[in-house]
Amino acid sequence: MNRQELVNLIREKQSYLCVGLDSDIQKIPKHLLSHADPVFAFNKAIIDATKDLCVAYKINTAFYECMGIRGWETLQRTVEYIPSGIFTIADAKRGDIGNTATQYAKTFFDTYKFDAVTVAPYMGKDSVTPFLQFPEKWAIMLGLTSNEGSQDFQLQQMGDELLFEKVMKAGMEWGTPDNLMFVVGATQQSSQLAHIRKLVPDHFFLVPGIGAQGGSLQEISTQAMNKDCGLLVNASRAIIYAGNGEDFAADARQAAAQYQQEMAEYLSQIAVGI
Amino acid sequence: MNRQELVNLIREKQSYLCVGLDSDIQKIPKHLLSHADPVFAFNKAIIDATKDLCVAYKINTAFYECMGIRGWETLQRTVEYIPSGIFTIADAKRGDIGNTATQYAKTFFDTYKFDAVTVAPYMGKDSVTPFLQFPEKWAIMLGLTSNEGSQDFQLQQMGDELLFEKVMKAGMEWGTPDNLMFVVGATQQSSQLAHIRKLVPDHFFLVPGIGAQGGSLQEISTQAMNKDCGLLVNASRAIIYAGNGEDFAADARQAAAQYQQEMAEYLSQIAVGI
Repeated sequence: MNRQELVNLIREKQSYLCVGLDSDIQKIPKHLLSHADPVFAFNKAIIDATKDLCVAYKINTAFYECMGIRGWETLQRTVEYIPSGIFTIADAKRGDIGNTATQYAKTFFDTYKFDAVTVAPYMGKDSVTPFLQFPEKWAIMLGLTSNEGSQDFQLQQMGDELLFEKVMKAGMEWGTPDNLMFVVGATQQSSQLAHIRKLVPDHFFLVPGIGAQGGSLQEISTQAMNKDCGLLVNASRAIIYAGNGEDFAADARQAAAQYQQEMAEYLSQIAVGI
Repeated sequence: MNRQELVNLIREKQSYLCVGLDSDIQKIPKHLLSHADPVFAFNKAIIDATKDLCVAYKINTAFYECMGIRGWETLQRTVEYIPSGIFTIADAKRGDIGNTATQYAKTFFDTYKFDAVTVAPYMGKDSVTPFLQFPEKWAIMLGLTSNEGSQDFQLQQMGDELLFEKVMKAGMEWGTPDNLMFVVGATQQSSQLAHIRKLVPDHFFLVPGIGAQGGSLQEISTQAMNKDCGLLVNASRAIIYAGNGEDFAADARQAAAQYQQEMAEYLSQIAVGI
């Protein structure tokens, strides 16, 4: 999916919601365990219940990888089940040197047909650029993450800037607003969010951290939206585990609808593009 | 495998060679393509030919992941085929926040039974420590990598040290020489290698970059060995693609044997432990 299609999707659905399918067999409703593939049954119900409210699904590969080959089968079924026209993200945080990075890009773009994959920047340019060679596919590079450990290196001073700022500036040289997004956690202070948007005016941000992690949709939306919206705000647990009974999908829909309605309001406040 | 067992293995085999199974179906000998699982047939022959000469195998997961579910089946067959008593490394460079990091740790330690997994440090402490909770298992954290992109961030000044130095010092606080190693590329200058060993005296280093990438076994061995050896030196392409005909395994053995013989010589020069 290219940038214009994504922007159109956001306008049409009045939503920049990304539903995170961090689906854990330990946490899904017990009545699904009789299915041949319980996690797929869960994902299918969540997708059916939320597909008109979100513009993207993010699959956290760790939750599938830990189930071995069965888990990858579930992942493949899930990504194939997501309706075309919805943006798909493999949250895999891969990062390795050129030759290997190309294999990872092929994995997620060619083998599993995702639109985007998250990548880690520590190894530098030759670990990121191989992901930028695929037409209408996206690398989503870690910028400033939502966890406590972001203090350890990302928020440390490197010369006259912070490491995450250097990383995001480098990313802007390596990629374009048409093939590169950044992960920016919603758990930052609002002044920090506004500062990051000023630093990186045009690229989309994938924003984890609202809901269970405590970030505020209002803050991220008012501080970091750009004229094209420029945000994909992810909620995982707050949506997929909104309920745990027979009607879990209806509960998930309700949680997603609340986010979507709030998003429609923020979108109405920006003039251009959307 | 615990540290003492690894040190014993190095002493017994007079080797600190890690064979990297970066096995690419495009590059393996053509006559193997008739096998049901050509990459496994290749790995099996390489393992049979090198298992007495090396102390570790490193599986670069990207080369398996890109083949989808079949690739994971090959990976599982391969790791199961590696004789017990040889150290196994999943070179997966995973890195994500606590909850997700735990899922990755389970993936490689519980599901696939690897001894070690490589992890990326950008997200900080809570992305690394979940890997340190598994008895006799190892996290191998990226320190200073062997690629050109290591210049972009790792070798940049952060306060009064370089980022990779800060990362390695942080790792030493999070883990111990019994559960944490570091990736240190062999393509650095010898003064840099000696400096890193001084900074991190006790931890094992996993050293990629000799062979195809141009690093020197002599330099890394003379500059960065410690009293327990403290090195696992990886060669991938230089061994597994040493030949490309019917007798590729014999060629691989010959390449591995040359490394092992050189290693035995360096080991004879250290007095203690080995």
